[in-house]
Amino acid sequence: MEISLLSSISSPEDLKNIPQAELSALCKEIRETIIDTVSKNGGHLASNLGCVELTVALHRSFSSPSDNFIFDVSHQTYTHKLLTGRYSRFHTLRKEGGLSGFSNPDESEHDLFKTGHSSNSISLALGVAEAKRLSNDPSYTVAIIGDGSLSSGLAFEGLNNAGRTSANLIIVVNDNKMSISRNVGGIARHLAVMRSRPSYLKFKSRLENFLIRIPLIGKPLRNSVYRIKKFFKNAIYHSNMFEDIGFSYFGPVDGHDLTKLCDVFKSAQMVKNKPVLIHVITKKGKGYEKAETTPDFYHSVAPFSPEKGAQISEKTTFSDVFADELCVLSDQNKNICAITAAMGMGTSLECFRRRYLERFFDVGIAEEHAVTFAAGLAAKGVIPVFAVYSSFLQRAYDELIHDAALQKRPVIIGVDRAGLVGEDGETHHGVFDVSFLSSIPGIAVYSPACFSDVRIALRKAVADNSGITAIRYPRGVEDDVFSNYQSSSDDIDIIKPSEQCIATLITYGRITAEAIKAVRILEKEKIYVKIIKINKIVPLDTETIKNNCSGKVFFFEESISHGSISERFCAAFEGRVTAVTLKHGFVTHASVKSLLAANNLDAESMIAIIKKECNL
Amino acid sequence: MEISLLSSISSPEDLKNIPQAELSALCKEIRETIIDTVSKNGGHLASNLGCVELTVALHRSFSSPSDNFIFDVSHQTYTHKLLTGRYSRFHTLRKEGGLSGFSNPDESEHDLFKTGHSSNSISLALGVAEAKRLSNDPSYTVAIIGDGSLSSGLAFEGLNNAGRTSANLIIVVNDNKMSISRNVGGIARHLAVMRSRPSYLKFKSRLENFLIRIPLIGKPLRNSVYRIKKFFKNAIYHSNMFEDIGFSYFGPVDGHDLTKLCDVFKSAQMVKNKPVLIHVITKKGKGYEKAETTPDFYHSVAPFSPEKGAQISEKTTFSDVFADELCVLSDQNKNICAITAAMGMGTSLECFRRRYLERFFDVGIAEEHAVTFAAGLAAKGVIPVFAVYSSFLQRAYDELIHDAALQKRPVIIGVDRAGLVGEDGETHHGVFDVSFLSSIPGIAVYSPACFSDVRIALRKAVADNSGITAIRYPRGVEDDVFSNYQSSSDDIDIIKPSEQCIATLITYGRITAEAIKAVRILEKEKIYVKIIKINKIVPLDTETIKNNCSGKVFFFEESISHGSISERFCAAFEGRVTAVTLKHGFVTHASVKSLLAANNLDAESMIAIIKKECNL
Repeated sequence: MEISLLSSISSPEDLKNIPQAELSALCKEIRETIIDTVSKNGGHLASNLGCVELTVALHRSFSSPSDNFIFDVSHQTYTHKLLTGRYSRFHTLRKEGGLSGFSNPDESEHDLFKTGHSSNSISLALGVAEAKRLSNDPSYTVAIIGDGSLSSGLAFEGLNNAGRTSANLIIVVNDNKMSISRNVGGIARHLAVMRSRPSYLKFKSRLENFLIRIPLIGKPLRNSVYRIKKFFKNAIYHSNMFEDIGFSYFGPVDGHDLTKLCDVFKSAQMVKNKPVLIHVITKKGKGYEKAETTPDFYHSVAPFSPEKGAQISEKTTFSDVFADELCVLSDQNKNICAITAAMGMGTSLECFRRRYLERFFDVGIAEEHAVTFAAGLAAKGVIPVFAVYSSFLQRAYDELIHDAALQKRPVIIGVDRAGLVGEDGETHHGVFDVSFLSSIPGIAVYSPACFSDVRIALRKAVADNSGITAIRYPRGVEDDVFSNYQSSSDDIDIIKPSEQCIATLITYGRITAEAIKAVRILEKEKIYVKIIKINKIVPLDTETIKNNCSGKVFFFEESISHGSISERFCAAFEGRVTAVTLKHGFVTHASVKSLLAANNLDAESMIAIIKKECNL
Repeated sequence: MEISLLSSISSPEDLKNIPQAELSALCKEIRETIIDTVSKNGGHLASNLGCVELTVALHRSFSSPSDNFIFDVSHQTYTHKLLTGRYSRFHTLRKEGGLSGFSNPDESEHDLFKTGHSSNSISLALGVAEAKRLSNDPSYTVAIIGDGSLSSGLAFEGLNNAGRTSANLIIVVNDNKMSISRNVGGIARHLAVMRSRPSYLKFKSRLENFLIRIPLIGKPLRNSVYRIKKFFKNAIYHSNMFEDIGFSYFGPVDGHDLTKLCDVFKSAQMVKNKPVLIHVITKKGKGYEKAETTPDFYHSVAPFSPEKGAQISEKTTFSDVFADELCVLSDQNKNICAITAAMGMGTSLECFRRRYLERFFDVGIAEEHAVTFAAGLAAKGVIPVFAVYSSFLQRAYDELIHDAALQKRPVIIGVDRAGLVGEDGETHHGVFDVSFLSSIPGIAVYSPACFSDVRIALRKAVADNSGITAIRYPRGVEDDVFSNYQSSSDDIDIIKPSEQCIATLITYGRITAEAIKAVRILEKEKIYVKIIKINKIVPLDTETIKNNCSGKVFFFEESISHGSISERFCAAFEGRVTAVTLKHGFVTHASVKSLLAANNLDAESMIAIIKKECNL
């Protein structure tokens, strides 16, 4: 297929010059280009195919970059990229040094933020819109957010605050009737109700006409006239929750009808001093039949043949093994429940859903609730297992501390995609979890290197019901070096070389495979290195590690440095500095003075410690 | 006043035996006891006085502990404590070793969770209720949540998920028309609309009668009959957002009318297979006139005389100084905006609100939104300053990383109540922020020891617009040792003794005062110790610190150990271990293989590093 229209567009201004009659051909070209590139590079497919017309209509109706579009999660920005001068580089999508799979201000002035986590677009857009209002900038700020993303608390906080703004803020709800997994919860149901009203706006005015003509009859009712009128007024003007919290609501609009979309955007621009919410209905995967039929499967795909369609990977992943072991354990233990935050497929928990529907909870994109809900379950004897991507678990840091750890009840977190994830880039790498999980009092953290390590860790976590446990495992498959590997159930394994070693290499998790490979190569050069493989990284048994170190000591770690395990180990290794911090665990209530003394942080304790260490 | 009724109650069963006629006297006794104890020990007053009847009615209508009450934030549980066997120990409230100011399972089987952070009660209650459902336990689970707490995303996630439960879950919204500061946002407005409907339930049935009798007249309308009937049905049955998302709504109910409260709780118990939300209107501070008039001021108080009322503290706090310097800077710089999450008084930002109303944003209890909104403001040239308690900032960990730091734009966080806070206890100590803030790529963190340090840090933060900056300062006042102290604007200050020192004491923040005191005492004993006072703790200038260390080295730090500054320093101090972690900063997109190599974490890099360090 020739891509003659799209290739002529180097900015949104060019798009505006394309005749109306050719737009449908343009949309076809965009879809072809997306399918072609994603089939080669992998990437997000169904969501991008679903919002082609929506994005074209936005760029026809507004003027980016003076008007700003903020796409939630931003994995659906491929059309936006194609229309904002990035067509010629689009073949580099998700390649090293190439275009990011998400919005990126380093790529274009049409992108304001790097994003990849869900549900922040309303808050960001409100900030942008308020800043413009303060500087008397009359341009528009438009957030585009999927129905799935609306289930998150951050989106709600944004809506709740945006509802009272007088800035030029427009929220487009891209309702494709599902989030990444099947959508859940009250909001989803409410959207469904709204969808069932075929032409809301027209109907509203017809209803108003009707009300004016109501004859007031019936004796017992006469006294209630005033109240009833007021109630009807509420019913008309506050007929959905978005209006309840302050928005002008437009919709539902067919998100594949360019004319209707442009109409509604023009109408929205005429609303003054009030935020607008536009409810657009789209079909995920639109224009590629296979993706229309199974949009979940085509949410994010590896390279595939467009003719044959994407294939189910035959390879077993760490997620598969975690979910499989969870099912095995749940056969024996009826108290185990599984929780996902709209990631049933990504975390492989779908098998659990099929087997134990009643004990399975998909809470929507709501990681905070997931952890707190788990703490609630645990209070009544359930063993909750929440599998979640490492980078998304960041959302629940406070809940992990305050709702899970503080209660000292068993909550198990399967930290999927721990470590580097590759092409999804900086918003998706799971590189903070070692640091923030380590900071949680009383937590146990396992970092398996291979499949059997995962199974052992999960079995230990289920057996130990003293508190919160995290098991962190990487994206993808097991390394071949583990094909004959025998996992132990110890917290630390020592892999000794055949001869006296010259150095010790400490590591854990996925890169243990790299360490084993390195040591094997060195051994061929007659350089012998011992590996200390840490299975349970928190609490860290520094003594055992120290006692097993010989020769030069190396610590390799797939984590940020601050708060890392190696930092902790290094600090403990030498002991030349006497460090006094708060004692481990939660600090109870008492006066600050008393607490400082109890933790050796008041002047008197300082004096005593200094004297003791200096032999004075 | 004699406390004869309350003193006779040692469990909720005893309460049920008290005749209806005496309940009002009981409530009076409860109020007297609360006012008496809080006036002596300090604590939360207005919220506790507001829910006396509500708590009595709950315990009359349900059967704790088989039915469970989960109080949001739980600073309003004083009546609950008094009715569940803790009357005799109530005088120890908030004292070391005494009763906690919050719910606490260690104190009583009537408390299921330790809580102190806002808005988690619905998620916890849903977890408890679902666990009971799975084990066929027919008892009730009741969450009691204030209108202010509803503005948080976590509460919304809980509501969104609870809306579809078939467990015996009841949510009581304690609507006192304000959160800690004035309530804000769409939900608050929506609650106000509902409050204006005087007797919702009765009215609803009257309206239904009316609708049945509507004569259908008017030609153009005849065709719309079906639609209109459906619309009316929606209007009646989904007339507020709680019903929209799946709840049976009861209310509004006068929260000081015991009979009506008991009635509504009985009605709620009759709803099956559907969650219930009960909307109760209460008055904060009820029964103590001073607190009724200024409930904000009486939210949390230090000891006071009940006759004279609580006094405004004359003492200047760290919060005051931060807010004052912010006002000074904002006089000169019109781009500065201030943000609070319902803590205008606690953070002293009220002075900013009065001076620059347009540039002041109270977002409600919504720390996540606050940070993301700040990132949005910063994208258009605003310098946003968000002042927030350290322990509540935990909620925004992901937003700090993903929405603020990743964008590399200036966002300033005033981390109030950093370090130990005293009597509020384990949920309120700000002891995690050093660790989690340190983990954020590109952040600068200042930890002032005295007032002038705070002013200097804020001026530097506003001048430096390269990224995210946090300034952490403690609760309370400056130590006297700083009365003649001259702050420098250096990142590190060295306080040298008059003679050759025997040891070096490294520290930062509030406990610098303790260090100075310790060193002065030692000096009198002719023991000379140098102090290295770190003003900017992240990024840490380890080299300068190392170069200034002499003698024995001590590091005192008011932080948890994991991820602490001393841990980082100790790890860097010796260097006997070669630690390789991910390089500092966000990791971009590329294949995992390529990223591991770029970060020296693949086998080849490992080999090269080992050979180099071992001179092979």
